[in-house]
Amino acid sequence: MCSRILITSGPTIEPIDPVRFLSNRSSGQTGFHLAAEAGRRRLGPVTFITGPTVFLPDDVELIQVESAQEMRAAVNEHFPASDVTIMAAAVSDYRSLKYYPEKLKKRGERLTLELAKNPDILLELGRAKRRGQTLVGFAAETEDIFANAQRKLEAKNLDLLVLNEISAENPAFGMVENQVYLVSADGVRKLEKMSKALVAARVWDEILALRGRNG
Amino acid sequence: MCSRILITSGPTIEPIDPVRFLSNRSSGQTGFHLAAEAGRRRLGPVTFITGPTVFLPDDVELIQVESAQEMRAAVNEHFPASDVTIMAAAVSDYRSLKYYPEKLKKRGERLTLELAKNPDILLELGRAKRRGQTLVGFAAETEDIFANAQRKLEAKNLDLLVLNEISAENPAFGMVENQVYLVSADGVRKLEKMSKALVAARVWDEILALRGRNG
Repeated sequence: MCSRILITSGPTIEPIDPVRFLSNRSSGQTGFHLAAEAGRRRLGPVTFITGPTVFLPDDVELIQVESAQEMRAAVNEHFPASDVTIMAAAVSDYRSLKYYPEKLKKRGERLTLELAKNPDILLELGRAKRRGQTLVGFAAETEDIFANAQRKLEAKNLDLLVLNEISAENPAFGMVENQVYLVSADGVRKLEKMSKALVAARVWDEILALRGRNG
Repeated sequence: MCSRILITSGPTIEPIDPVRFLSNRSSGQTGFHLAAEAGRRRLGPVTFITGPTVFLPDDVELIQVESAQEMRAAVNEHFPASDVTIMAAAVSDYRSLKYYPEKLKKRGERLTLELAKNPDILLELGRAKRRGQTLVGFAAETEDIFANAQRKLEAKNLDLLVLNEISAENPAFGMVENQVYLVSADGVRKLEKMSKALVAARVWDEILALRGRNG
């Protein structure tokens, strides 16, 4: 089976001024391994849209972005031609409401930073999804994780949700290993803690099984 | 001359919750080259206190920290025994007033993040400085750069201030080259745009000249 594949990866950076920004602890390892595994299995050409990370795969169409808005523009351009889309990037939920083109001077003891919600790229893709397209999302939850995951699967029209339970035992972000759950219309399957390379292989197994059944 | 050297480098990361943080675009290259140059010249043992960066020098006592508060604690421990202290780290001016131990859920269209001013580590060191200690600071300015630099030199009791003028022509942060000014009691000296490795060599030339004259 040869499909066109779109993978997003890494964190986004949301600039406040020329020097300061908001970001998150995504290392980009999982997205990297998803692309590498697609390459090993010769599943088809990969477009890889990533925020700032050192984990950059070979043999992909590489598109490097910074902010959620830049990522959205790149994703929207490539999604229509994609058969399998895996949104592994940790997109910042919020950006600074204002961008200050001059470096902010240090002021008083307290400062209020106004944030604006970023577009929910995954939700937009779920709405735009056509028959034959497979859409995979990621979630990182700390509370009510299965109820939240089931809600996201339906609300965002996903075929598969890879669920991270973030805890002291499983920090997930930045680590080499991860323990995830695969959530689909079939229900929830728990994977053991394993390397992110192996998680990527199991996610691809699941995607191919889902596509084989529906295709 | 053999001196004990303390160098700070890199950005700081100020956590908001287990996943999100505030940071800045410091790459840690200048601090790295300052340590490497001290090693090449055999100037003395180097303690290197750094925020998250891939630029980690060899042959130093390496102390890795994340936040401004962690950096302050490490610096305060090592400053008293240091002959030359170079504060090249880009310490975040502000941190999140609250740390949220659970990942914040996405909420409304707007969100207000309350920030609290971080300690001014350089100012504290300037006050604690003893005779024979040399203290070097960095500044990144976008407006009134010389007036601001002169004010900082005096207010913080510095021997030398390395001044970056941040502009479209000289983004400084993350770049391999930089154009800086050396500001001391002697006045302001402009260096040409050069590699950060060469900037580090020129900064050491200046430090050794200042110490030779005063020592």
